[in-house]
Amino acid sequence: MPDRAAATAFVPGHVTGLFTVDRREAPAETGSRGAGLTLEAGVEVTCQPADRTTITLDGAPTSVESVSRVLDALGVEATVEVSTDLPIGRGFGLSGGMALGTALAANEAAGLAHTMNELVSVAHVADVEAGTGLGDVVAQARGGIVIRESPGAPPHGALDGIPGGGRVEYLALGELSTPDVLTEHPDVLTRAGTAALERLQERPTRSQFMQSARQFTADVGLATARVESILAAVEETGGVGSMAMLGETVFGFGTALSDAGYEPQVTRVDPAGARIE
Amino acid sequence: MPDRAAATAFVPGHVTGLFTVDRREAPAETGSRGAGLTLEAGVEVTCQPADRTTITLDGAPTSVESVSRVLDALGVEATVEVSTDLPIGRGFGLSGGMALGTALAANEAAGLAHTMNELVSVAHVADVEAGTGLGDVVAQARGGIVIRESPGAPPHGALDGIPGGGRVEYLALGELSTPDVLTEHPDVLTRAGTAALERLQERPTRSQFMQSARQFTADVGLATARVESILAAVEETGGVGSMAMLGETVFGFGTALSDAGYEPQVTRVDPAGARIE
Repeated sequence: MPDRAAATAFVPGHVTGLFTVDRREAPAETGSRGAGLTLEAGVEVTCQPADRTTITLDGAPTSVESVSRVLDALGVEATVEVSTDLPIGRGFGLSGGMALGTALAANEAAGLAHTMNELVSVAHVADVEAGTGLGDVVAQARGGIVIRESPGAPPHGALDGIPGGGRVEYLALGELSTPDVLTEHPDVLTRAGTAALERLQERPTRSQFMQSARQFTADVGLATARVESILAAVEETGGVGSMAMLGETVFGFGTALSDAGYEPQVTRVDPAGARIE
Repeated sequence: MPDRAAATAFVPGHVTGLFTVDRREAPAETGSRGAGLTLEAGVEVTCQPADRTTITLDGAPTSVESVSRVLDALGVEATVEVSTDLPIGRGFGLSGGMALGTALAANEAAGLAHTMNELVSVAHVADVEAGTGLGDVVAQARGGIVIRESPGAPPHGALDGIPGGGRVEYLALGELSTPDVLTEHPDVLTRAGTAALERLQERPTRSQFMQSARQFTADVGLATARVESILAAVEETGGVGSMAMLGETVFGFGTALSDAGYEPQVTRVDPAGARIE
């Protein structure tokens, strides 16, 4: 039965280095400006239409609001199997990644004939409405080092990219509960994010991305003591690390973390963006 | 000397299945609507800043107007080495591919700090001004199966994508001299291209892409007798092939051409788009 075929999508992880909070009335126009890295480490989602939706994460039953919202929006009931080589809840954009992977895989498996922009919009709205992300989905759909020039899903948001990619190191230390500043004083983040984005747009290079992200981390004061100590150690070796927004995770290009004596996880910038496998 | 470092970019080939001609006063706004496939077969461009620009293609000295125009626009003199596994002048968008590859590699090698959108715009304008392409560069930058919703380089043009990819077969039979209809009656092409694009947008799937491209080929009457005969043979086996716009080249998904007894070249849809290697 072709309408019960399974399809699998891959979505890169996304580490935001700097961001703004841009809330609008419509979720499709709500989002975030800023910049981040999409990663070859990511999330794989397999969907198979079924009589009743079930979701598993690395084999264990779970519920993921952004995924359920995508299936509702598409009018699909499906068996959804999610697997990832990234840690959950540590700033890798996995809620958005699961939403986008579900949109792509469900569209393919159920023969729905939506375009990429339509599926990105469905996943972005689901992530925004679930309260789990503002800018991950649009970046994950594009791939590379993504600058979010204006907020929201297609056709509202506008993206650009910093050419190139390369090796990325990260240390995922722990989860970070949603900081008060995000819910109560988003204007503080947005002011710092706007300034950091402007500096990056003046010189859009990989090196300046790290500098802008590092300055943003310092400005918003969200780094834990463990994160601060690693960032300081990296700087002592002449490198630059920064903090994933939002998780207790430190990242850097090349060998920035291992040069400082840490034993980080290693991945690369993903050049492709989300795709059916 | 870091300012004499070399950098290499890969750009996928691009087969246009249907297109319009949308000329505007500004080359950045000039372009084409339509749809096409980007391919894992493509062009590799290595740039190294030099005192005087030289261009080689698979080792042999050559001149490529779109490449020279990109270097002029960027203010770079460079040794440019181009290699490709696709045949030149047969509808694979190689002029645009060489322009975009040069833009990416020269930006990287010379440390110019342009963004992706800026480099895409420089390459698109060079391809338009050289008279060698209207819509290849923007599609090649994105990757996948690309719908060009509106013409021109960023931020003018708007793109969407058909999810998925897969195996692509092609037979490159020969060059095609620029047909009179393109220069003298672009309105005929644009009428057929607009109709084919509308059908595709009603049901944006891989299958409909082939149907729309096949209908466009029939409507514009550019197929040679050899192309017509292959398309008919493919249809007899229940498959769909179409003609690359513009080259004497037949393409199809999966095993469309080999099922009809041909021995085609094989590649796949490129998921990533142009990138630094």
